[in-house]
Amino acid sequence: MCKGFKAAGIAAGIKKNKEKDLGIIYCETDAVCAAVFTKNRVKAAPVLLDMERVRAGTCRAVIANSGNANCCNGDAGMACAVEMAAAVARALKIPETEVLVASTGVIGNPFPIEKIIQKTPNLVSLLSKDGFPDFASAIMTTDTVPKLIFRTGEIDGVPFSVTGVAKGSGMIRPDMATMLCFVCTDIGIDADRLQAALSRANEKSFNRITVDGDTSTNDTVIVMANGASGAIVKTGEDYLVFSNILDDILFRLAKMIVADGEGATKCVTIIVNNAASDTEARAAADTVANSNLVKTALFGQDPNWGRIMGALGRSGAAFDPDCVDIFFNDAQMVASGQGCGDAAEARAAQILKQPEFDIIIDLHAGDGTASVLTCDLSEEYIRINADYRS
Amino acid sequence: MCKGFKAAGIAAGIKKNKEKDLGIIYCETDAVCAAVFTKNRVKAAPVLLDMERVRAGTCRAVIANSGNANCCNGDAGMACAVEMAAAVARALKIPETEVLVASTGVIGNPFPIEKIIQKTPNLVSLLSKDGFPDFASAIMTTDTVPKLIFRTGEIDGVPFSVTGVAKGSGMIRPDMATMLCFVCTDIGIDADRLQAALSRANEKSFNRITVDGDTSTNDTVIVMANGASGAIVKTGEDYLVFSNILDDILFRLAKMIVADGEGATKCVTIIVNNAASDTEARAAADTVANSNLVKTALFGQDPNWGRIMGALGRSGAAFDPDCVDIFFNDAQMVASGQGCGDAAEARAAQILKQPEFDIIIDLHAGDGTASVLTCDLSEEYIRINADYRS
Repeated sequence: MCKGFKAAGIAAGIKKNKEKDLGIIYCETDAVCAAVFTKNRVKAAPVLLDMERVRAGTCRAVIANSGNANCCNGDAGMACAVEMAAAVARALKIPETEVLVASTGVIGNPFPIEKIIQKTPNLVSLLSKDGFPDFASAIMTTDTVPKLIFRTGEIDGVPFSVTGVAKGSGMIRPDMATMLCFVCTDIGIDADRLQAALSRANEKSFNRITVDGDTSTNDTVIVMANGASGAIVKTGEDYLVFSNILDDILFRLAKMIVADGEGATKCVTIIVNNAASDTEARAAADTVANSNLVKTALFGQDPNWGRIMGALGRSGAAFDPDCVDIFFNDAQMVASGQGCGDAAEARAAQILKQPEFDIIIDLHAGDGTASVLTCDLSEEYIRINADYRS
Repeated sequence: MCKGFKAAGIAAGIKKNKEKDLGIIYCETDAVCAAVFTKNRVKAAPVLLDMERVRAGTCRAVIANSGNANCCNGDAGMACAVEMAAAVARALKIPETEVLVASTGVIGNPFPIEKIIQKTPNLVSLLSKDGFPDFASAIMTTDTVPKLIFRTGEIDGVPFSVTGVAKGSGMIRPDMATMLCFVCTDIGIDADRLQAALSRANEKSFNRITVDGDTSTNDTVIVMANGASGAIVKTGEDYLVFSNILDDILFRLAKMIVADGEGATKCVTIIVNNAASDTEARAAADTVANSNLVKTALFGQDPNWGRIMGALGRSGAAFDPDCVDIFFNDAQMVASGQGCGDAAEARAAQILKQPEFDIIIDLHAGDGTASVLTCDLSEEYIRINADYRS
């Protein structure tokens, strides 16, 4: 694992089901940090606190809980976020301002700060190099699997490591998602380049996934880099080595989130080519990716391309309906705006049985491109979300 | 019923289930007509044909089928729409250009024009003053009930009648819906005022409903007025008498569509008050009304107002999260951005058990207002749409 980082996760009684719900990541020395947050106008208290604290560019620890989002709790919520960080600072004897906070779960419920303060010494005592899987479990809400990825790289012959942990399953759409993600690395890098690498990787990953088109008040991605490996980012080439690994980690975590989308049975990449602009390509891909009718057809394994045409038509992207081509992987379903017949449908029906495939749309209207990862919409999604709080 | 109008509906074998799928409305004399159509960039052949024909301002008949949308069928599709109208013109001995066409159903399937041509003489022979219920049945797709409304009014002591028929259940969102609507009236009115009254009524009804956020390629609303009652719109006051009745008919049909939304168990009006502008109020109301997380919570009868806050936060409307108030009918759930506690939740939970209620959101950011009708999202919606074509 990454040198100099420890983690832990325990059950603190925040969730009703007695599962792990409180986690911590700790860096033994000062770490450079960077972060991106939700663009939702309604932001949870920990997001507002972290936005302030990450400006310093360094941090030592992150404490995160599931089961309660600490959002829409007013001044009391902000006081809880501050107090949660203070409890960690006391237990670890580090400055309070070097502790970041993240919460995920139900919005608007009173925050159980007493439980967290009481359990924090125990949580800190369990910190270990091998604690990341427990941390990954502690931040899960409707996730069915923990999401943890480890990669290594090398700069000037010196190896370094990167560990990424994420949660997210519902309330997922482009422009972040109801997700938390924490990345630790023992590479040495300055805060500006770390932020640039994170922003780029985020744009190519978490900003391109959708489960249900909803966005969250708590979305947070934090990267900490402590330099403990001895590998240092000095040149532009070094930066690319690290940046590519970060891209890969975030993309894989994003894909794990979509694959674990609430009730999802399929992970589908919507690719739009030759739109009038990249912006219009993105609008078209997003509209298809978020269409309930497209997503239920994917669940039903029905190559109902008419719904894709309908979604494209309301996306705002400019195109001539008589010029559109649509492919499912390599099987052409639509040529010049019309269906390709029964043989094409039969091939597409086979592709739709796969857990993962691409839908490629050519608008023949320019050279803009975009891609978005989505999943299908199943009855299970309804079951999960109809009684989420109960 | 309205003087001078007849209708009929039969099973022509277009639907697989042998139910009625071909209908006609006929006016014995020339009728003034007005129409509004889908804003989707992908438009079905009958929509494109009607857009051209309604410019003349008069028509004699409308033929409509369910089971096939005649969309994305290229030149062949347009030829079918023209031929469908021609079959009616031949049978009724009226000019072909005075016949409008509407289709609804699966997009992209070859259009069964032979069946329609073969059955049209029989359809026409069944025309009757009492045929509107059969027509209403013939245009249903996933609708579970036919949608037919009759109203009367009076101008200068002369009574007139208005009959409205609609279909629509899925692919419904603001800016029209996957819906067809036909209104007949025996009032006398000129084409310009008829179009103005229709556009106004449409804006206040079909443009304010959502079932799943998807829009259709076939949406069409046609009004025919033949003057057979002897009641004539001459003054502005006369116009208002008619216009208010048309508003009411379209609003009731719109509400019937939402209440019959695919899998819907509840009909909910989202009202946004005191937004920075009417446009922002509409954006906020639409985002809440289309949020899958809000809609599944409504299905689960869970007053999960945090999801409403989350939807508002991503709507693009400007507001201070700490100033938002949310009511379920008269029960305040959120005051100044925070929950009102267990007693409020308990009251709201009772309201959520009702089949129809309002969610009222006050953004305290200006004086813009908007309202949108929506329904809940249930497992039944998934079942209906996962295997729609099979």
